[in-house]
Amino acid sequence: MNAPLPLAAAPESLLVIAGWGVFPRLVLEGARANGVKRISVLAFKGSTDRATCRAADDCRRIPFGDLALLRESIRASGCARAVLAGQINPLALFRARMDRGMLEEIAALKLRNAHTLFRRLVEDIESRGVEVLPSSLFMGRHIPAPGTLSARAPDAREAADLAYAHTIAMGVCNLDIGQSVVVKDGVVLAVEGFDGTNATLRRGGRLARGAVAAKVAKEGHDMRFDIPVVGTKTIALMRRVGITALGVQARRTLVLDLPAVVQAADRAGIALVAIDTPLQPAPAL
Amino acid sequence: MNAPLPLAAAPESLLVIAGWGVFPRLVLEGARANGVKRISVLAFKGSTDRATCRAADDCRRIPFGDLALLRESIRASGCARAVLAGQINPLALFRARMDRGMLEEIAALKLRNAHTLFRRLVEDIESRGVEVLPSSLFMGRHIPAPGTLSARAPDAREAADLAYAHTIAMGVCNLDIGQSVVVKDGVVLAVEGFDGTNATLRRGGRLARGAVAAKVAKEGHDMRFDIPVVGTKTIALMRRVGITALGVQARRTLVLDLPAVVQAADRAGIALVAIDTPLQPAPAL
Repeated sequence: MNAPLPLAAAPESLLVIAGWGVFPRLVLEGARANGVKRISVLAFKGSTDRATCRAADDCRRIPFGDLALLRESIRASGCARAVLAGQINPLALFRARMDRGMLEEIAALKLRNAHTLFRRLVEDIESRGVEVLPSSLFMGRHIPAPGTLSARAPDAREAADLAYAHTIAMGVCNLDIGQSVVVKDGVVLAVEGFDGTNATLRRGGRLARGAVAAKVAKEGHDMRFDIPVVGTKTIALMRRVGITALGVQARRTLVLDLPAVVQAADRAGIALVAIDTPLQPAPAL
Repeated sequence: MNAPLPLAAAPESLLVIAGWGVFPRLVLEGARANGVKRISVLAFKGSTDRATCRAADDCRRIPFGDLALLRESIRASGCARAVLAGQINPLALFRARMDRGMLEEIAALKLRNAHTLFRRLVEDIESRGVEVLPSSLFMGRHIPAPGTLSARAPDAREAADLAYAHTIAMGVCNLDIGQSVVVKDGVVLAVEGFDGTNATLRRGGRLARGAVAAKVAKEGHDMRFDIPVVGTKTIALMRRVGITALGVQARRTLVLDLPAVVQAADRAGIALVAIDTPLQPAPAL
């Protein structure tokens, strides 16, 4: 996953179905660097950065929730390969005005979370002859290998808490709950539910200064969507709430963009590490 | 556990080490109903209800965090059996002024949460020749068997969400995180961390109206302390934040007091059920 896509495998054209933030634009850059010649963007009104559209060869903006228009736009792009990049605010899933097709798709889902919704979307796209590639194919330089990324390494207490937080986050993530936890002195202060990573960091930070946070993907996570992402805003928030170390999952977390995030961590004195996922169960207490 | 303690086994005298709320007083009532003749209370300043003290044959109030005084008070009670009943606000564990003995005990713990602290306390008490009994021994009528407790049964959607919430809560609890979760439409909205059940209900309720909540004990939970408890305040909070159904773990959750909680649930139109936990034996007491 860290290796760039071999040039021979890079498609001539690519459709980027783009949510918010810098992630879709970095996918565009990565795709161009990997030899993709034409890049179309499908953007969502109110979500997708204009910079993402500007970086594309062509861009179409549609409202979130209009499945018929989404399908038509994918077809019209003429691309045989697509990637999903950038989040949709999960609350948008509840608040969007949806067309009949979207409502039917959602009603047919047994569980309705970001993962099941996006998996259904990927199936729908692929059933129309468009292959969905993992966006990580084009993002190798933003996906860290194991090790300390920041200038400051975690101290002994932070290192112990990071290892514990990573293990607990894996357990939580495997229950399909959320991707992040906040820990101090071996106590789980906060667990991500539907509220997302930022709210979880705020809650944990309120309970104790000097806590650590971990963010992971679950085993068998589908890297075509819902990839764990952290960015400079994550670091800024940590600094604000007094969380002093962050452990992301090595090889499976997008750090966007990596040089900027490391710089922000160094300025804040935050220890940033990429942790290899151990295969052992939670420790017996 | 539902059966009252056989009279032959009821101790002559009992020490109730009492935290906040109605739980310790109900233990006193249960102990008297089970034939205990003399009941001493050890109360914590700023935590324990005065009604708990008044119901005892003798009561001593000490500050939380003074381990030397705690040990001396236990000895002075002359009781050979004790129970722990009623919570200590977990934040008190961080904020209390602690004596040297308490600090040393805490420093020696690998993990510092309510469970490890109280387990250590129980060990300390038992090492001084006082046996710690599960408080549930005296609380049979407040520990529900499986079934619907409220007038209103959960509807089909609530029932599906309650089953899912119960399973997820077991998984979370077995990771030593917290005891409760809030779910709607198969999505985990909120997970209890160090912030406690009430904060979790508030967070979940904010994210969606009509959610359900589950509260459980973990497998092998030590019923001598840290027993899951819900009460009328839980129901009042659920009503306020729009959570419409609550599933507690049958045979292992204290519902305090049960008739008052059922009445409160019925007034609020809340469905209250005791859910049998699959795949695990009844806890050894």
